[in-house]
Amino acid sequence: MQGTQEVVVLRYGHRPGRDDRMTTHVGLTARALGADRVILPDNATQSAETVADITDRFGGPFTIEQDDSQKATVRDWDGVVVHLTMYGLPVEETAPEIRTSLDSEPVLIVVGGEKVPFEIYEAADYNVGVTNQPHSEVAGLAVFLDRLFEGRELDAEWPDADRAVVPKATGKKVVATDETPADADTVGADGDADTS
Amino acid sequence: MQGTQEVVVLRYGHRPGRDDRMTTHVGLTARALGADRVILPDNATQSAETVADITDRFGGPFTIEQDDSQKATVRDWDGVVVHLTMYGLPVEETAPEIRTSLDSEPVLIVVGGEKVPFEIYEAADYNVGVTNQPHSEVAGLAVFLDRLFEGRELDAEWPDADRAVVPKATGKKVVATDETPADADTVGADGDADTS
Repeated sequence: MQGTQEVVVLRYGHRPGRDDRMTTHVGLTARALGADRVILPDNATQSAETVADITDRFGGPFTIEQDDSQKATVRDWDGVVVHLTMYGLPVEETAPEIRTSLDSEPVLIVVGGEKVPFEIYEAADYNVGVTNQPHSEVAGLAVFLDRLFEGRELDAEWPDADRAVVPKATGKKVVATDETPADADTVGADGDADTS
Repeated sequence: MQGTQEVVVLRYGHRPGRDDRMTTHVGLTARALGADRVILPDNATQSAETVADITDRFGGPFTIEQDDSQKATVRDWDGVVVHLTMYGLPVEETAPEIRTSLDSEPVLIVVGGEKVPFEIYEAADYNVGVTNQPHSEVAGLAVFLDRLFEGRELDAEWPDADRAVVPKATGKKVVATDETPADADTVGADGDADTS
């Protein structure tokens, strides 16, 4: 996130078809909650395209990469490696320490998909559990990022967006970002019931 | 969560096959992050079974229900209705107010799957956005619950679990919950590289 060293999310493992939506959600969550970059497996092309499309429309800075050497990326990372796993140490204890590291070192966050080999546990500087209960890698990533950034990611700006949502108590408002909200109708209708 | 009024997560909409994993992750996230109950659509039987199975093994209290009248459940809810949507008001502004309500009223959290009709936006006391960016309903639910409970859900106890994970810096330890960690080998091996 702006103002810190780089935060990168690496999705470990992907089964095309079966994992498409989960991998897409990992990528979109990384972007929305303050990571600078996501590294997806080489075979996750459909997810990479979806995340790139959202980034084109809703803005960055955010980078999407694909990589066929994930073990090497983790092993050779020049900074802090965090592996999110239900077997790890509590997020509430580890996140503050990792936040301090982020002043001087980039952080790689490994999010498991299919089976994660033991060498990833060993390569990680921190194996972190968002609870020690089985739930969702997307949920774990979201809570971890929110705590890493202490909520500052919620105020992010998206300087190169084509469009932006204007928060509303009821209904929907989407504006083209070179317009004022009063001109919203050109992009989206206020209170439109048609969801996407 | 224990010590508050009931918190219930309602998954709105489900397409069997296509949405199975997302709906399962909504249910597991609700359980792991402090909700008391999840209401899944009538046609989400596979997801309901998975969440029930995890609850049997890793403990409750947590209730899984299926319901074919989701609109009526939302409309007739006797308490506060929260709808998570990227078009809503910021979580950082709304969660504290909803937390205060929870002292006296149960809270229903609606998590959209397929298209959410406009009447849900209207029926909600709070339309809440975890950022106004497109990402993941699972990520949104996770951050919302963590902020609603201010992290207290991370210390939850699971009194009727068969097994529990013991947090570790590296590797995995799972124990039968009527045993001490020293007896762990009967359930899971410490440092076992075999992930699930």
